[in-house]
Amino acid sequence: MKILVSEVGPRDGLQSIQSIMPLDAKKKWVTAEAAAGVTEIEVGSFVSAKLLPQLADTAELVRFARRIPGLTVAVLVPNLKGAEAAVEAGAHKITIPISASESHSLKNVRRTHAQMLDEVKGIVTLLKDVPADRRPKFEGGLSTAFGCTLEGVVPADTVVALADALMSAGCDEVGLSDTTGYANPAQVRDLVRRVKSAVGEHALSGLHLHNTRGLGLANVLAGLEVGITTFDSSLGGLGGCPFAPGASGNIVTEDLVFMLEAMGLWTGIDLQQLMAVRQVLREALPSEDLYGFTPDAGLPLGFSQEAAP
Amino acid sequence: MKILVSEVGPRDGLQSIQSIMPLDAKKKWVTAEAAAGVTEIEVGSFVSAKLLPQLADTAELVRFARRIPGLTVAVLVPNLKGAEAAVEAGAHKITIPISASESHSLKNVRRTHAQMLDEVKGIVTLLKDVPADRRPKFEGGLSTAFGCTLEGVVPADTVVALADALMSAGCDEVGLSDTTGYANPAQVRDLVRRVKSAVGEHALSGLHLHNTRGLGLANVLAGLEVGITTFDSSLGGLGGCPFAPGASGNIVTEDLVFMLEAMGLWTGIDLQQLMAVRQVLREALPSEDLYGFTPDAGLPLGFSQEAAP
Repeated sequence: MKILVSEVGPRDGLQSIQSIMPLDAKKKWVTAEAAAGVTEIEVGSFVSAKLLPQLADTAELVRFARRIPGLTVAVLVPNLKGAEAAVEAGAHKITIPISASESHSLKNVRRTHAQMLDEVKGIVTLLKDVPADRRPKFEGGLSTAFGCTLEGVVPADTVVALADALMSAGCDEVGLSDTTGYANPAQVRDLVRRVKSAVGEHALSGLHLHNTRGLGLANVLAGLEVGITTFDSSLGGLGGCPFAPGASGNIVTEDLVFMLEAMGLWTGIDLQQLMAVRQVLREALPSEDLYGFTPDAGLPLGFSQEAAP
Repeated sequence: MKILVSEVGPRDGLQSIQSIMPLDAKKKWVTAEAAAGVTEIEVGSFVSAKLLPQLADTAELVRFARRIPGLTVAVLVPNLKGAEAAVEAGAHKITIPISASESHSLKNVRRTHAQMLDEVKGIVTLLKDVPADRRPKFEGGLSTAFGCTLEGVVPADTVVALADALMSAGCDEVGLSDTTGYANPAQVRDLVRRVKSAVGEHALSGLHLHNTRGLGLANVLAGLEVGITTFDSSLGGLGGCPFAPGASGNIVTEDLVFMLEAMGLWTGIDLQQLMAVRQVLREALPSEDLYGFTPDAGLPLGFSQEAAP
């Protein structure tokens, strides 16, 4: 069975660190990871360069990455203006993050749920005029879906209602993000089932999980059990929480791919080649910590990866 | 549902580090962790003090710990001589480790499987003469059950045959250990099912999993799914592999308890109180690293533990 590992390091990793990676290094990273077999990479975010100077070259990176054969080039867009820039650059997939916690939404982007849904509708209208071969897939990404550092528990009903509203507004699919690292496997199974039954089996394919409390891969396993086939992760766990050493933010791509391949699932990614890509990060970001249990410990003796199914 | 979290730090953690923890600190640790609600602690191993000076005071610690109400005092015994000492000290549970990989067994204890089974039979004979109220439960612990650093893959058939042989020789139960951190969730489900169908549902209750490649908690989840109700772990991940920072050996007790409690399972352990026990280790072993994602990140806002079922 094919599982899509979606690399988000060039966006989620780089936006979380102080260092700015030069465009050439980003190109090298994306190229090397695609060569290792990664077929979807979130290369940046169309936000103001003042807010996130680390991602100021997103448009240029998108234009570069879309020439890599077989690669889906994904980006984050906070609003209609970002979506316009993403379409202009030629992104294959755009995701607008909407916080399931309204307090978090207000604090983060100063918008209510209703205002965010208006933004979504604006993007849907924009996409109607884009020729089919340039039209990106449009995902509504529900952040803080498993809990919020401001509100605590986020009711599952709120998440389900928002997922439903996003699909009604015209999104192609929705995703769930454990922005705060609050999720546990029982909750993952439950929330995925509920959202799927509201929006349909195929409208929810992806989970963006964090490893803040060490449960990242257990939550992936729970997701697999309820039909999730796309998981976000970050090479070297780049952007891990600096105040909690080892308590990385994103799931480490290397560990995720190791788990999936060891279980006999197919990612299409060559693990040895993937681990070699860490060198690009080490050279371009010498002051940043890289994480990962599997890279530290090495692959088990006699470990072999599945051939394509 | 009650899940038994069996603390193995005083044995598996302390035997893996250079520092020797004074007996008084060990007593403080065991006392504090039992007070936090931990009901089974492996306090040491009856091996030669020359081999493991860190555990030379095991008999004294057993005599102390067995006076703590409600606590099951477990120890490792490598052979008949160790079992005699364990019975003499009053341990409630003894585990003899047998390596499923014969190469590993020969290298580690210079004994074949047949020789280890003879040792087991000797211990069974010894236990026949122990009065019921002093007779410890006797577990055969299959180490390298999920793979070996010398042999690579260890065939499931070998593990099943050994589990069967251990029960036939008179063990009360068997356990499976992922000594090398090679296990993956699919393998855990498969091997547990096979062993249970060979020796019976109740003869296999426990897993000793490592987090070497970051899959520890995912493997716990897989174990839960196939009826495992006892999991070993080490407070602060003490004894984690020194050459692979962050790549701890044992599962971190704090993270394990967090996952189980967050899932609505019941451990009887107070997480805040458990995390406070880390201070005992910090004071007694100032040069040792402590691990744990949950202690670093803190509990989620609004997190509450289940009451007893």
